[in-house]
Amino acid sequence: MDNGLIEKVLSELGSKINLQSLDKDQISKIIQTAAQQILAKEAAQVIENKNVVEEKREVLTMSAPSAITEFVGTAIGDTIGLVIANVDYYLHEKMGLDKKYRSIGIISSRTGAGPHIMAADEAVKATNTEVVTIEMARDTKGGAGHGSLIILAAEDVSDARRAVEVALKELDRTFGDVYGCDAGHLELQYTARASLALEKAFGAPLGKAFGIIVGAPAGIGVVMADTAMKTANVEMVTYASPGAGTAHSNEVIITITGDSGAVRQSVIAAREVGLSLLKAMGQETQSSTQPYI
Amino acid sequence: MDNGLIEKVLSELGSKINLQSLDKDQISKIIQTAAQQILAKEAAQVIENKNVVEEKREVLTMSAPSAITEFVGTAIGDTIGLVIANVDYYLHEKMGLDKKYRSIGIISSRTGAGPHIMAADEAVKATNTEVVTIEMARDTKGGAGHGSLIILAAEDVSDARRAVEVALKELDRTFGDVYGCDAGHLELQYTARASLALEKAFGAPLGKAFGIIVGAPAGIGVVMADTAMKTANVEMVTYASPGAGTAHSNEVIITITGDSGAVRQSVIAAREVGLSLLKAMGQETQSSTQPYI
Amino acid sequence: MDNGLIEKVLSELGSKINLQSLDKDQISKIIQTAAQQILAKEAAQVIENKNVVEEKREVLTMSAPSAITEFVGTAIGDTIGLVIANVDYYLHEKMGLDKKYRSIGIISSRTGAGPHIMAADEAVKATNTEVVTIEMARDTKGGAGHGSLIILAAEDVSDARRAVEVALKELDRTFGDVYGCDAGHLELQYTARASLALEKAFGAPLGKAFGIIVGAPAGIGVVMADTAMKTANVEMVTYASPGAGTAHSNEVIITITGDSGAVRQSVIAAREVGLSLLKAMGQETQSSTQPYI
Repeated sequence: MDNGLIEKVLSELGSKINLQSLDKDQISKIIQTAAQQILAKEAAQVIENKNVVEEKREVLTMSAPSAITEFVGTAIGDTIGLVIANVDYYLHEKMGLDKKYRSIGIISSRTGAGPHIMAADEAVKATNTEVVTIEMARDTKGGAGHGSLIILAAEDVSDARRAVEVALKELDRTFGDVYGCDAGHLELQYTARASLALEKAFGAPLGKAFGIIVGAPAGIGVVMADTAMKTANVEMVTYASPGAGTAHSNEVIITITGDSGAVRQSVIAAREVGLSLLKAMGQETQSSTQPYI
Repeated sequence: MDNGLIEKVLSELGSKINLQSLDKDQISKIIQTAAQQILAKEAAQVIENKNVVEEKREVLTMSAPSAITEFVGTAIGDTIGLVIANVDYYLHEKMGLDKKYRSIGIISSRTGAGPHIMAADEAVKATNTEVVTIEMARDTKGGAGHGSLIILAAEDVSDARRAVEVALKELDRTFGDVYGCDAGHLELQYTARASLALEKAFGAPLGKAFGIIVGAPAGIGVVMADTAMKTANVEMVTYASPGAGTAHSNEVIITITGDSGAVRQSVIAAREVGLSLLKAMGQETQSSTQPYI
Repeated sequence: MDNGLIEKVLSELGSKINLQSLDKDQISKIIQTAAQQILAKEAAQVIENKNVVEEKREVLTMSAPSAITEFVGTAIGDTIGLVIANVDYYLHEKMGLDKKYRSIGIISSRTGAGPHIMAADEAVKATNTEVVTIEMARDTKGGAGHGSLIILAAEDVSDARRAVEVALKELDRTFGDVYGCDAGHLELQYTARASLALEKAFGAPLGKAFGIIVGAPAGIGVVMADTAMKTANVEMVTYASPGAGTAHSNEVIITITGDSGAVRQSVIAAREVGLSLLKAMGQETQSSTQPYI
């Protein structure tokens, strides 16, 4: 409640009292009524402002795709999906793309690499596209982890666009086992059947169950890795730490493969120990969307 | 409005009412007056405090340069300009400086690399100095981009100081086409005639028109790059992305050269598509100072 | 003070006035008393809530170690101390640990590398452990510097745990000359006798006095380095900048060795010039705990 409101309450009270006889019951009612009216007006204003903002945003989001042909959509993690129908010749060369691909789909985010790679993996399964580059930026907007830049290529722009759409839609699911708090974060991914994006990013064996386990600060990731390996008969594919394999992020990232049940069990065990350790740092964590593993 | 103030309003009201007869008009006036007086006092106090803080800061900023001979000044982007008249022998060696330079000028920032390199380029044109190192830090205080450390060298300290002064002054202009928002940022630079800082940092051809195009998150930079290349007959000098050529920042950075008009046109087209894409992410962006391109 | 409270004050006033005759002294008392009662109730509630939160946190912190055997403790800088009694065979191999060590101690932080390396140095002096890896992440939660991941190894888990405990305890001291503000930070470390952690991280000569000097933004670190070298007869061991030797952090980090008095004097001189330069950027800085050098 700001100074303006209290001023209004008091002056409103004053003006009303002027117009009334000084009966005590009436005074008490006036005081209550004036306050309630002002508060109600304020509340209505706040709600109205909110609606205006939301309407404006909706208009903005709705109108944007029509203006820029490259725009596909946005998603959680400050993610933007884009498409270029016919990549400029020189850019094509500088990016090191294969000559046969004219069109590219782009998935770019400030927060999250695992969820985006997993979403791209589904996109590649579902469309006629190829993963050309997966790059991880040291980002997460002041957090301990990564953002990502994933480029998919296609001979036809409609394939590229479709792939980006699939990936953006998948993100709601793949963010399900991303848990953040001020002190750090966890990121768990699981698929029963790894495809080309996971192969590109981590050398995942195609068609096999695959899990990604991320803990930040990095020490938590070490304990999660140890727990995962001891929980079930899984094989470690990669191990990355701040000094090697990450973009100097404050994470330990391991990837595992094996029998579907074993991988899933290991990922869940890693999640549980990670959540307990963040709790031990005095922090409550929450799923970014809905846990799926 | 904190609890202390409401307490004051109520007790003030109480004490005044004690001293007055209970005439209804008077009560209403008292209520209004008391509230206004207290609020006015509060406001005056706030303004006074602000002035004191500003005065103190001014004193601090004014007195600082005299205290530390190395201090030249500060500028936008948490930039500090420094000078060392006679660099320590061992530091000189460890920094890999040429023996002939005794004095160095330092331009160091938390936010921004492009604006600083462009400003240093003007400084080198205007003074008898040489660019010795340009380093980009993964910074921007939780943003997606870079900070920078630029070292200029001179045989004479007055030249080094003059160069830093020129660069700090230029920053107000070169930040003109830096656009930031929560989701990302754009950074556009254009010069009709590239000099030694741009050559050092990007291999710019000396004396030719030169442009820098930066988009974050990186995917936006890809589309800006594509747009720039298709807009006019320009040549791409460098392409950098999170995985190569940046300090793992979440940016795509391209530099272009060509005819002055073509470079300018390409940079402007890239800016427009970049601004539209940030808008499509639901974000309004603003120039950090005043657009100059 | 939220709208709910003002509503309560006014309605409380109203109900009381109903029950009283309209004597002016009484009105004033009622107004005061009602406000005081409500505010007192609010305050009591706030204090109670705080206690509940603290009790819960205490319970959490107390119960956490028992739940997770790997948890040792937490400390300043979002630091977590962990231990693994018997590292998984495959993780052991991927981390490149020596076969003879079954147990590892982990010190992992979001903010700070120098204080943690210095603390680990004391831990190694005090226990039967070895430093196996020291990695620096580009972190500090949006700041300009590093987080860290330090792994100590031991043949016995009790040694590893003891080492982590010693390091966590030391951090309160080693953060004493860490000074942060919005624009940047300084980090000073000094020991009269360097041990194995400092040797591992920086190649410090064993048993000699050793100092670490860090300034951010990096330009401030350059001037601090120059000042340190000119102040006393010390030798520079390492020089790191955003482009080399750091994880692209916006820092210049130097380490020095020499006579105990000379090193200490140089570190203090660097601290003074660094504090003055941050002040010249208009910022007040404070020790994170208590200065010790």
